[in-house]
Amino acid sequence: MPKNLEISLLLDFYGEMLTEKQRVVVEMYYDHDLSLAEIAQHGGITRQGVRDSIKRAENQLLEYEEKLGLFRKFHAISAGLDEISEHAAFLQEENRRLAYSEEFLKRCEKIMHIAQTLNI
Amino acid sequence: MPKNLEISLLLDFYGEMLTEKQRVVVEMYYDHDLSLAEIAQHGGITRQGVRDSIKRAENQLLEYEEKLGLFRKFHAISAGLDEISEHAAFLQEENRRLAYSEEFLKRCEKIMHIAQTLNI
Repeated sequence: MPKNLEISLLLDFYGEMLTEKQRVVVEMYYDHDLSLAEIAQHGGITRQGVRDSIKRAENQLLEYEEKLGLFRKFHAISAGLDEISEHAAFLQEENRRLAYSEEFLKRCEKIMHIAQTLNI
Repeated sequence: MPKNLEISLLLDFYGEMLTEKQRVVVEMYYDHDLSLAEIAQHGGITRQGVRDSIKRAENQLLEYEEKLGLFRKFHAISAGLDEISEHAAFLQEENRRLAYSEEFLKRCEKIMHIAQTLNI
C-alpha cells in the first residue's frame, strides 16, 4: 500500500474529525511509521482490518479537503505570508541603507512579526 | 427560536459538510431569513420538523468548529492581514513624504496586494 504524503498533512488538519479509533490507526501508520502488521498486532485486529480502516480514513480526509478546501487555503496563506516577510525584510534593509528612521524600522518589524505570527 | 449570528458565519465555512437537505433548510433560515412556517410550507414538512432540522445542523456546525477551530484561525489571519495592509500603507506614505524611491513604493504595494489577496 503506497503512502500518500498528502494524508499526513490532512491528518494534522482534519484528524479531529475522525473517530478516535480511526485516528489512532492512521497516526500509527503515517506519523509513527508502523507497518500494517505491527498496527494489527497492537490493536488485536487483522492486517486486512488495519488496511481497510486506513483506507476508509484516507478517503474521509480527502473528502473533507475536497468539500472544504481549507488545507489548500491555509497553504496559500502561508506562502503569501512568507512573501510578506521577505518584502518587509527588504524594506528594513533598504531603509537602513538610505536613511535611518526609527518609526520606519518599527513598522517593518511589526509587518514581519505579524506575518510570522500568522504563519502556520 | 433565537438566531445565532455565529451560525451564519460557520455555515459559509462548513456548510459543505452538511447534507444537501440540511444545508438548504439552514440557508433559507439564516441567509434568506425565511420563517419556520415558510420553510415548512416550502419543504412540505412540519414547523417542528424544520426546527429540529435546523437545531441538528446548528449543533453540527458548532461541533465542527469546536473540533477544527478553523473559522477562529481564519478570523485571526484576516485581522492580522488588515494590520499588515495598514502598516504597509503607512510605509508608503512615509516614503512619499521623506524621499521618493520607486523600488520602495513597489514593495509596499506588493505587501498590500498580498495582504488583500490573502484576506478572506
